[in-house]
Amino acid sequence: MSGNSIGVLFKVTTWGESHGPATGAVVEGCPSGIDLAEEDIQKWLNRRRPGSSPGSSARKEEDAVKILSGTFQGKTTGTSISLLIENTNFEKGAYENIKEVFRPGHGDFTYFRKYGIRDYRGGGRASARETAARVAAGAVAHKIILQAGVEVVAYTAALGGIAIKRGKNLEKTVTYEDIAANHLLCPDPDAARAIEDRLAEARRSGDSLGGIVEIIVRGCPPGLGEPVFDKVDADLAKALMSIGTVKGVEVGAGFKVAEMTGSEANDPMTPEGFLSNHAGGILAGITTGQNIVLRVAVKPIPSIEKLQKTIDVRGNPAELSVKGRHDVSAIPRIVPVCEAMVMIVLADCLLRQEACKFKR
Amino acid sequence: MSGNSIGVLFKVTTWGESHGPATGAVVEGCPSGIDLAEEDIQKWLNRRRPGSSPGSSARKEEDAVKILSGTFQGKTTGTSISLLIENTNFEKGAYENIKEVFRPGHGDFTYFRKYGIRDYRGGGRASARETAARVAAGAVAHKIILQAGVEVVAYTAALGGIAIKRGKNLEKTVTYEDIAANHLLCPDPDAARAIEDRLAEARRSGDSLGGIVEIIVRGCPPGLGEPVFDKVDADLAKALMSIGTVKGVEVGAGFKVAEMTGSEANDPMTPEGFLSNHAGGILAGITTGQNIVLRVAVKPIPSIEKLQKTIDVRGNPAELSVKGRHDVSAIPRIVPVCEAMVMIVLADCLLRQEACKFKR
Amino acid sequence: MSGNSIGVLFKVTTWGESHGPATGAVVEGCPSGIDLAEEDIQKWLNRRRPGSSPGSSARKEEDAVKILSGTFQGKTTGTSISLLIENTNFEKGAYENIKEVFRPGHGDFTYFRKYGIRDYRGGGRASARETAARVAAGAVAHKIILQAGVEVVAYTAALGGIAIKRGKNLEKTVTYEDIAANHLLCPDPDAARAIEDRLAEARRSGDSLGGIVEIIVRGCPPGLGEPVFDKVDADLAKALMSIGTVKGVEVGAGFKVAEMTGSEANDPMTPEGFLSNHAGGILAGITTGQNIVLRVAVKPIPSIEKLQKTIDVRGNPAELSVKGRHDVSAIPRIVPVCEAMVMIVLADCLLRQEACKFKR
Amino acid sequence: MSGNSIGVLFKVTTWGESHGPATGAVVEGCPSGIDLAEEDIQKWLNRRRPGSSPGSSARKEEDAVKILSGTFQGKTTGTSISLLIENTNFEKGAYENIKEVFRPGHGDFTYFRKYGIRDYRGGGRASARETAARVAAGAVAHKIILQAGVEVVAYTAALGGIAIKRGKNLEKTVTYEDIAANHLLCPDPDAARAIEDRLAEARRSGDSLGGIVEIIVRGCPPGLGEPVFDKVDADLAKALMSIGTVKGVEVGAGFKVAEMTGSEANDPMTPEGFLSNHAGGILAGITTGQNIVLRVAVKPIPSIEKLQKTIDVRGNPAELSVKGRHDVSAIPRIVPVCEAMVMIVLADCLLRQEACKFKR
Repeated sequence: MSGNSIGVLFKVTTWGESHGPATGAVVEGCPSGIDLAEEDIQKWLNRRRPGSSPGSSARKEEDAVKILSGTFQGKTTGTSISLLIENTNFEKGAYENIKEVFRPGHGDFTYFRKYGIRDYRGGGRASARETAARVAAGAVAHKIILQAGVEVVAYTAALGGIAIKRGKNLEKTVTYEDIAANHLLCPDPDAARAIEDRLAEARRSGDSLGGIVEIIVRGCPPGLGEPVFDKVDADLAKALMSIGTVKGVEVGAGFKVAEMTGSEANDPMTPEGFLSNHAGGILAGITTGQNIVLRVAVKPIPSIEKLQKTIDVRGNPAELSVKGRHDVSAIPRIVPVCEAMVMIVLADCLLRQEACKFKR
Repeated sequence: MSGNSIGVLFKVTTWGESHGPATGAVVEGCPSGIDLAEEDIQKWLNRRRPGSSPGSSARKEEDAVKILSGTFQGKTTGTSISLLIENTNFEKGAYENIKEVFRPGHGDFTYFRKYGIRDYRGGGRASARETAARVAAGAVAHKIILQAGVEVVAYTAALGGIAIKRGKNLEKTVTYEDIAANHLLCPDPDAARAIEDRLAEARRSGDSLGGIVEIIVRGCPPGLGEPVFDKVDADLAKALMSIGTVKGVEVGAGFKVAEMTGSEANDPMTPEGFLSNHAGGILAGITTGQNIVLRVAVKPIPSIEKLQKTIDVRGNPAELSVKGRHDVSAIPRIVPVCEAMVMIVLADCLLRQEACKFKR
Repeated sequence: MSGNSIGVLFKVTTWGESHGPATGAVVEGCPSGIDLAEEDIQKWLNRRRPGSSPGSSARKEEDAVKILSGTFQGKTTGTSISLLIENTNFEKGAYENIKEVFRPGHGDFTYFRKYGIRDYRGGGRASARETAARVAAGAVAHKIILQAGVEVVAYTAALGGIAIKRGKNLEKTVTYEDIAANHLLCPDPDAARAIEDRLAEARRSGDSLGGIVEIIVRGCPPGLGEPVFDKVDADLAKALMSIGTVKGVEVGAGFKVAEMTGSEANDPMTPEGFLSNHAGGILAGITTGQNIVLRVAVKPIPSIEKLQKTIDVRGNPAELSVKGRHDVSAIPRIVPVCEAMVMIVLADCLLRQEACKFKR
Repeated sequence: MSGNSIGVLFKVTTWGESHGPATGAVVEGCPSGIDLAEEDIQKWLNRRRPGSSPGSSARKEEDAVKILSGTFQGKTTGTSISLLIENTNFEKGAYENIKEVFRPGHGDFTYFRKYGIRDYRGGGRASARETAARVAAGAVAHKIILQAGVEVVAYTAALGGIAIKRGKNLEKTVTYEDIAANHLLCPDPDAARAIEDRLAEARRSGDSLGGIVEIIVRGCPPGLGEPVFDKVDADLAKALMSIGTVKGVEVGAGFKVAEMTGSEANDPMTPEGFLSNHAGGILAGITTGQNIVLRVAVKPIPSIEKLQKTIDVRGNPAELSVKGRHDVSAIPRIVPVCEAMVMIVLADCLLRQEACKFKR
């Protein structure tokens, strides 16, 4: 049933399977008169492209986006924007060996149970391929939040058990350039080197790795979020948890609040601003004006070469070693996907807040 | 703006401030012909009532629910159900001392920044009072999920840094009775006793405590959830994060997946079922049929007696000690609220999945 | 299932049956800081009260509205507004005689077929009583559109085959006072007198009458409406057709366009404005800035004393004469309901258009 | 802003301008396992193709649809279906002459006022071209309603003031074949001939014509529609009024009810069924099981060769004669668009009603 749309005023509807002819998004709610060219979107897609990082597959995806509607003479018209990305480079037949068996940890079992149909082609909508449409839509959201001075930066905070060392000002100072300095989109070069070794080792053993992505929002005005259900943290949690491999979402101090007292957790207020940011920029579901700080737990890629116990489509026991071009970790490719989802939510919040200020 | 509704087919819309005449919910999408009396709802509301636990305030709330529509002769009619809970027992004037200053960690600052209006009465919509309507609506959702054999049990998993000891079968065996054995809704009696001491100590020092609530769903059929944005874990994350004091949500192994390999994290499948449940009952946003396991991080109550730095409504520096009847922890009162939100989401998922099976 | 809400940013959710304890609405999206007292709403409810008109029933409804949330010190806070109207004056047992038989032309048959449950009490949600909540919500919408200088006036344009004579400037000049000059809310006093006779005659013969209500919107800015499905005329058509007895909706020249040529139907444009208004203020689903002109066809009240052929709940043939206090026509009581629905739609359109102008 | 989606469970989102590279729709909520090939959709698109009728333009549109997602091995998978129709045959530069002036009766003025941007290319989203995506999506809806035994047939009921003569059983007996017998999709061959003459005459005089389309739904089960706002007639009215040239919508007896008495308008019920169908198959917003009868008023095409008074984009007076390939009437091309919109609404209603029957 319906469920492929996110957002109220800025609304993104996606479509496309990993092994169909194309994938894409319809983006509604982009105000008119904004410069928007294919290059503006392409540069975001390029960030999620499988690179030369030890964690990425060798599969080459072009991910060339086309704008099919919603712009005229290089500017948005205010009407729905259709974005299309052709699937040019999948291996036909590459998934024949998994046609008959379910992959542990993978969505093919649940899709089969939900829809009663077996689409064995590389995961269908449950494939990481689906996230390309999210990144493309996020590029449009970026245009909107930029007009309000909002910036979203995500990076690899941990991978395979190796965490970044963070200076206390990381959230305030980290730049896209810092992050782009290595293939892992990791702001700590020492951690990045250790992670590369860890990824190489996992690849050799036919296994995969999980990690943590951190997302920082800077310049966000106070007042965004629509209580009591469309709170900005609630909408962010949904948007991030809807990414395939995410199993946890935290705001600010996150799970650490469980061990704090009120006097520790509360961020004292002064005329110059807050003295700390345990709230992660959100109080009672509304932005405070501080940086928004989010963290997501990313599970290891389920498709691994290591032999696993499983069942086939008839329910009989089976063993499976997944061959083929698979990433060792969803990180770093998931990093721009996290950015995109946050930008999509914030674009929607900004537009909804406009209405809130009606005649005020 | 709008934002007070949750759900697509089973939809809950709430209203009401802490210090207004009443609070309530409109519940749409309850199928007709289901037995529903006020007692059925009252028993859930009674669970969130401030009790004699050291963590609860002395404030007595009656929380007597009235059904104003949607039933006839003790059965639902299929039309919208209006639930009303009068606010009978708030202290008028109790909040006069905080009229002029913002409470650190509290929503009164962000509500002021969003709406440009100062409703200083105990938090307005940002008050824990708002959750009474959620619990009442959850009681209706309970009627629906019960028909599908689904059971939701939540409990205190940690408070003030003291965690329960869990037998490995806790998620399979824990009952409402186990949990109701102490005021803390905690299935581990030893932990409960230690927590009571910790709460008493925090109360003495004018401080408050955070913790963790765990929610288990048993009997859930496979196939629930509507990819790619209305995945069941995405909708659950939103529903739980929309509760005032929640700062993090995990599914299954949650943040632990960040340190696992694929061969550790994947749950092997056999003809007899899965051999583990790191996925927490959800793969690719669709239920597997295993138990759903969720955990939320609950921040300490921000209103504390300890002196805090803050600002007043004109932006001048101020100091604040919040007097009055405040809980030391949102736990255990938040436990039935978590249950309610999960039941509301699952009721919606069950109904949406009905349509999915159209003519199949 | 869900279906009791209308609007995207300004959203109204209604509940309540004719013979339950109360009826009401939850109104979301009203900007903060607007004066709103119960009297502001009550005066609109009073307009739909059964009066002394020959077309109205003798039933006395008080329809006293209470505001249960969303205001503080006489102003809106930006949070959801709960409005409650107690049902104080229905005749218990009055509907016993129709318990076993379906009323021709009435919703009791279809509600039974939809929900499989027989709520025989005066129509339940299908009763005209349900419209009280619409009028109350419309009063909140009125506060919003007023800020944008928009005015909505509806009146009886025909009843029982007797149509008003219209001066060519009627749509530009008609006032609430003109309309309130008679019980029929009819701007033509001669027609009103003839209609009163026609109503008296219908009452004597145990029958009922249909008619036409016309709604004029003045001062509406150009640019409202969200193509291609949430066009302003589409949303208005839905809102008006959702009123129980409405069987047709027209915009501008309406069905007359079927016999016009393009050169007749097009409204010529000049620097001073349009030279005619066949479009009824809407082109391509967006307001032009001219007056919006709408007309709805109102069917005769189905509950009549005249003997009718019908069936009982077991499907056996039956005859029915509906006794009791029934209006002879839904007009004029439906007039303020039409106004309310139009105001609700326009309030939503105004707010959505705010977002459209983001940073422009 | 958002506004390009229709439906709750069966949801259609459209995109595309008349002179962009393509137009299309994303269709969510189609159950899995249904046969769906491009030919199934193409045959509906072919019905709206400009033909050899005197009312159609000479412009040749191929309207070849591609399915980009949501099917596997010729069957739907339950995921979102992306449909794309390339715009292969528009005249580049054909609209240069109207670049500077607004066309009376056309959406270019209101789009300019709404979005503040001038997309002069043939109407953008306000073009009839936009309806191709509706027809393609309607073809998917057809697959769903067919499984429930529902059939939708629309035809030309009047054009240029010439109405069909109707046998009293027209609504029960009219077939696609009857309608396809002439280019005008008109079930009355005599009327069709007279209309052809009228169209030829209008073309000669550089003018255009309006008319009436009637839509019949047969085999619809009772119980569809979700009161009180998502009533089936309310949703149908919205869907039909959202078509560019529609200015009025009627159900059953429609505007005729205004002159009827209750004893005339009520459809008597007998054990064998209803004795008449003034209700048009809908009572209180829920289907009765009788045929649904709808009528829409279609305005004349606003782009005409006859000289018209207008203004240019700077507000100066201008005169305009629209040259180029324009239809004389939106009928008959609008006929399959009306069918599509009705099928889209009914598919959604059928799925929503499934949930209504949960565990019953």
